[in-house]
Amino acid sequence: MDILIRGARIITQNANQEILEGDVLIEGNKIARIGKGLSGEGVGEVLEGKGKIIFPGLVNAHTHGAMGLLRGYGEGLPLHRWLEEKIWPAEKNLTTEDVYWGTVMGAIEMVRSGTTCFNEMYMFGIRHMADAVSEVGMRAVLGKGVYDKPDSRSVESEMKELREKVKEIKGKYPRVQIGVAAHSVYACSEELLREAKGFANQAGLLFHMHVSETRGEVFDLLREKNMRPVEYLDSIGLVDAGSVLAHMGWVTKREISIAGKNKASVVHCPVSNMKLATGGICPVSEFEDAGANIALGTDGAASNNSLDMVESMKYALLLQTHKYWDAERYPVEKAWDAATINGANALGLNAGSIEEGKLADLVFVDGKSVNLAPLHNDLRSIVYSLNPGNITDVMVDGEFVLRNGEIVLLDEQEAIENATEVAHDLVGR
Amino acid sequence: MDILIRGARIITQNANQEILEGDVLIEGNKIARIGKGLSGEGVGEVLEGKGKIIFPGLVNAHTHGAMGLLRGYGEGLPLHRWLEEKIWPAEKNLTTEDVYWGTVMGAIEMVRSGTTCFNEMYMFGIRHMADAVSEVGMRAVLGKGVYDKPDSRSVESEMKELREKVKEIKGKYPRVQIGVAAHSVYACSEELLREAKGFANQAGLLFHMHVSETRGEVFDLLREKNMRPVEYLDSIGLVDAGSVLAHMGWVTKREISIAGKNKASVVHCPVSNMKLATGGICPVSEFEDAGANIALGTDGAASNNSLDMVESMKYALLLQTHKYWDAERYPVEKAWDAATINGANALGLNAGSIEEGKLADLVFVDGKSVNLAPLHNDLRSIVYSLNPGNITDVMVDGEFVLRNGEIVLLDEQEAIENATEVAHDLVGR
Repeated sequence: MDILIRGARIITQNANQEILEGDVLIEGNKIARIGKGLSGEGVGEVLEGKGKIIFPGLVNAHTHGAMGLLRGYGEGLPLHRWLEEKIWPAEKNLTTEDVYWGTVMGAIEMVRSGTTCFNEMYMFGIRHMADAVSEVGMRAVLGKGVYDKPDSRSVESEMKELREKVKEIKGKYPRVQIGVAAHSVYACSEELLREAKGFANQAGLLFHMHVSETRGEVFDLLREKNMRPVEYLDSIGLVDAGSVLAHMGWVTKREISIAGKNKASVVHCPVSNMKLATGGICPVSEFEDAGANIALGTDGAASNNSLDMVESMKYALLLQTHKYWDAERYPVEKAWDAATINGANALGLNAGSIEEGKLADLVFVDGKSVNLAPLHNDLRSIVYSLNPGNITDVMVDGEFVLRNGEIVLLDEQEAIENATEVAHDLVGR
Repeated sequence: MDILIRGARIITQNANQEILEGDVLIEGNKIARIGKGLSGEGVGEVLEGKGKIIFPGLVNAHTHGAMGLLRGYGEGLPLHRWLEEKIWPAEKNLTTEDVYWGTVMGAIEMVRSGTTCFNEMYMFGIRHMADAVSEVGMRAVLGKGVYDKPDSRSVESEMKELREKVKEIKGKYPRVQIGVAAHSVYACSEELLREAKGFANQAGLLFHMHVSETRGEVFDLLREKNMRPVEYLDSIGLVDAGSVLAHMGWVTKREISIAGKNKASVVHCPVSNMKLATGGICPVSEFEDAGANIALGTDGAASNNSLDMVESMKYALLLQTHKYWDAERYPVEKAWDAATINGANALGLNAGSIEEGKLADLVFVDGKSVNLAPLHNDLRSIVYSLNPGNITDVMVDGEFVLRNGEIVLLDEQEAIENATEVAHDLVGR
């Protein structure tokens, strides 16, 4: 059904970075027209946009949605102990039903905080994730995880399962794409990395990986291969415009240059990096200067502990400001690009801005919220001051999935109760 | 009127750090009883607390409420240029009406994000601030600012005005106390600092000051006095349990020891410090180990750009974790203390915990919020995952000032419109 939104303030996020007061016409799942005084004749629904600010749906370029089940569990430990003693043992007991409810919960949280698409990496339960995402109405690229270390897994079994899952999911869900996610250099053999990337290239799928999140990972690889992670990945053909490299907190100038030259997408995850005491800060503006595509991610809610991309944008800005002692080094417009258009570009999505012909993924904000006033600058108010309570409506693919503050396509309270029940059961298993 | 809240989950914040499922009886402005199965007989109002989490109202220990009028204005500059080119010129044109509406707006924002009391420092319009705070229903300590450099002000005129304002405000507003706020070592002469602190001691008022926010301030003072700020302030008797020292981002071990030995209150303002690219990080756990009382503040919304203390708690934790590469150095319980009981202690308030005999300053959270689920740990969910949209009710002094998501005592939309109008007018003057 066509929808006309009248008289809203629109953060277009087009090349001119316009903010205009006008109308948006949605036809099917696309933005058909933007302008002033558009005719509502023959349009299915005409909505009053006065007092609203509309921005393009945010793209969370690195997360593990189902890990929300472990939010707040086993906290206060450094990364390796937290993974080894708490998260991995709990994840060993995960069922596909757990993954389903965890992903439903994560998708609702993302919708409520203005995210319309996310880039997932998870090892397990990918069809249940696809169901969950679709039932909430979101868009996602679900990276089927592969790894063959340290478990007794093999390249053959990983690749076989990957091929099967791709066949099972690809083209079956209108808002879901499948991707290939190789966990990391420390969890994947060189053979698996080459095979997985080769398969992704051949099948036209996104390739997604954790890279240089901790110092330990860097120095272990240096000892083993005499190369740093990005050098190593480049040497085996993994650093290109089809690769999404998450974290990248411990990198050298040479690695920045490699990622830039090859137009890789680099996902900054500031909240998770700080919370896990990794010490690394992704040098965002250096990557951008070198030519990389900088996107933004929350990482999983177990290490964040939120999936709020607006919060992560503010952390991204403040962490860069702090790193360089320079309030202008990473401008607010760049962080905004990272959370919108760059994320969409990283995932190959025709989204991330409000322009004619783009996918109708839109977020509606109550522009009269006290914490946004006095709105000297709409964009800065959104980036630095918005909270999820200010978001009233979210549209994905031309369909409202949040309307007047209510989740539309499923029963939110039932979902929260079910997710809570499986989560408590999981950590008690 | 007495109020009984039944069957809520209560983060008591008492010495045992209990979280209990039970009832709270409010009599007048105090918490009269806490327990299970309390009788509602003869109680004016009995409220169902099932599904709610209740925590003690947060105390924002350093802010400039009216500066919300300049939120998002003149951004992207380092501290000194931002102050000199944008903030101070705009503030020169401030009227008392502006201060009134700015403070109303700030107080509403604080209430909506769970803050029930704030420690203000502002140079101007203190009676209008007291009116604004009282009309929203909050609690505050309003520090009347004094400074005699670099303007053509004198110690005499500053002290005269201070005495007059104290006489005008003190005891006139049930939820407002007046305090003494000396701006900083760079804006106040030694004579003024001594006089202001002497007056505060004599009148039993809180003393509040900016200290060691920037490197520049530290090195200017070293050149002038051959002492660092805390050494200098100690040498003239300003560092004691009645002093609230905000920022403290550039300090030596010796200064940490001085502040600790003298039991001063130190206010960590992580968001503002990061956003203004000051480079300094208050060494919170070192101050605590030395014996100082660590509180938490947002600073003004012009440099934050929010007054959300929960957001600041998360930044406080993550910035310490990042500084020391240690996820356990500053535990979540300590940040929670900073935002509640330590803030109350800094201001000499009988608040900051839910205990019998304490002031009834309470925050009610919808415990079924998706971003808090699955609640493995109530406190961690509040500190790391809460957003203001999850807060349904706020009580100050036994009176609801936010009820079912609505501001009770005044018309919020009218307040936002008026604040917006004066703010836009102000920057155009």
